[in-house]
Amino acid sequence: MKERKKVSNSVVKRLPRYYRFLGEIKNSGMIRISSGELSRRMGLTASQIRQDLNNFGDFGQQGYGYNITDLHNEIGKILGVENKKKTILIGAGNLGNAIAAHMSFEKRGFDLIGIFDSNPSLTGKFIRGLKVKPVSQLDDFCGKEKPEVAVLCLPYEAAEKLVNKLYEAGIKNYWNFSHFDIKKLYPDSAVENVHLSDSLLMLGFHSNENL
Amino acid sequence: MKERKKVSNSVVKRLPRYYRFLGEIKNSGMIRISSGELSRRMGLTASQIRQDLNNFGDFGQQGYGYNITDLHNEIGKILGVENKKKTILIGAGNLGNAIAAHMSFEKRGFDLIGIFDSNPSLTGKFIRGLKVKPVSQLDDFCGKEKPEVAVLCLPYEAAEKLVNKLYEAGIKNYWNFSHFDIKKLYPDSAVENVHLSDSLLMLGFHSNENL
Repeated sequence: MKERKKVSNSVVKRLPRYYRFLGEIKNSGMIRISSGELSRRMGLTASQIRQDLNNFGDFGQQGYGYNITDLHNEIGKILGVENKKKTILIGAGNLGNAIAAHMSFEKRGFDLIGIFDSNPSLTGKFIRGLKVKPVSQLDDFCGKEKPEVAVLCLPYEAAEKLVNKLYEAGIKNYWNFSHFDIKKLYPDSAVENVHLSDSLLMLGFHSNENL
Repeated sequence: MKERKKVSNSVVKRLPRYYRFLGEIKNSGMIRISSGELSRRMGLTASQIRQDLNNFGDFGQQGYGYNITDLHNEIGKILGVENKKKTILIGAGNLGNAIAAHMSFEKRGFDLIGIFDSNPSLTGKFIRGLKVKPVSQLDDFCGKEKPEVAVLCLPYEAAEKLVNKLYEAGIKNYWNFSHFDIKKLYPDSAVENVHLSDSLLMLGFHSNENL
């Protein structure tokens, strides 16, 4: 296998899709797939696919296509799905509750070990087998458990107040549903933002063109 | 006001952020803001901001900055927030329930008028004052109410089965939380995808680099 090159951002963005798609066809029992067939199914050009996958080692064999399981595993490794990153979720309202209950964290390399909320009417409730703890216990918990990832299902102001505490406790990876700009404050953190309301506004824009 | 130009995709993607940010400072009572100040606060260059906003008319006045309310209103219009697009949500499980309860649809130009699920244990339940209806009533409902937008909080297979029915019923705008590729099937539809699991995988990738 080739040594791994530095992979460009546009390729990285396509990795989850490759991973998802290869997982589906692996489950369907296929062993190998050609770049042409991948291209047809994924809506990318075959040469784009060959270029993309070439970044991760020699999985293609001229005339034989790609070994699906090997490629799926390798992309999974790159995405860190075999890790068990200790993860906490803060904000157990409607959205946090749904995210905690709905997402397969463990399949994607995350181990959800704690859920926190500042609202006394939510603390004590069980979500996904975890008892929601008050935010006042966050310091203690982080000191003992050393989580690496925080999922923030919080409004802007609450996120703004909490992030420096989390960062000080050693958390540098954030799945951020708030509009608070963590990356601007801590450029060395890894942040994935999910801005649901921006996405809805974008639909408004595109549907305007459509109506 | 200048006639509106065709706005590039990269500018469009920044519109929700401008809209959100201008709304915040409008609420704080500010009247005007310079591109320099906007730049400092939003983390874009002043010339970038001038270029972006120049697309939407003459809101800036040399030396005086932008009129915040006018600019906020104009961007809101472009994003269609004054519309009342009739919207249905399908899939009232954890995620759909949270999306229905959590999002300010009406503030963003969407009027949520119906919620549907195929699971009998969810139908009859009230979410946001709407009674969850069985999917079997979808045809009738669409015939009468003529919704324009569908929010899909469904797994791939369920979305795959439903989309052609929705499209046939005249729905061409989708806020899609499933991995089913609606745009590929119906290129003339407007689709905003929210792929939560892809976002989580991306965090896995970036945190790997970070750990």
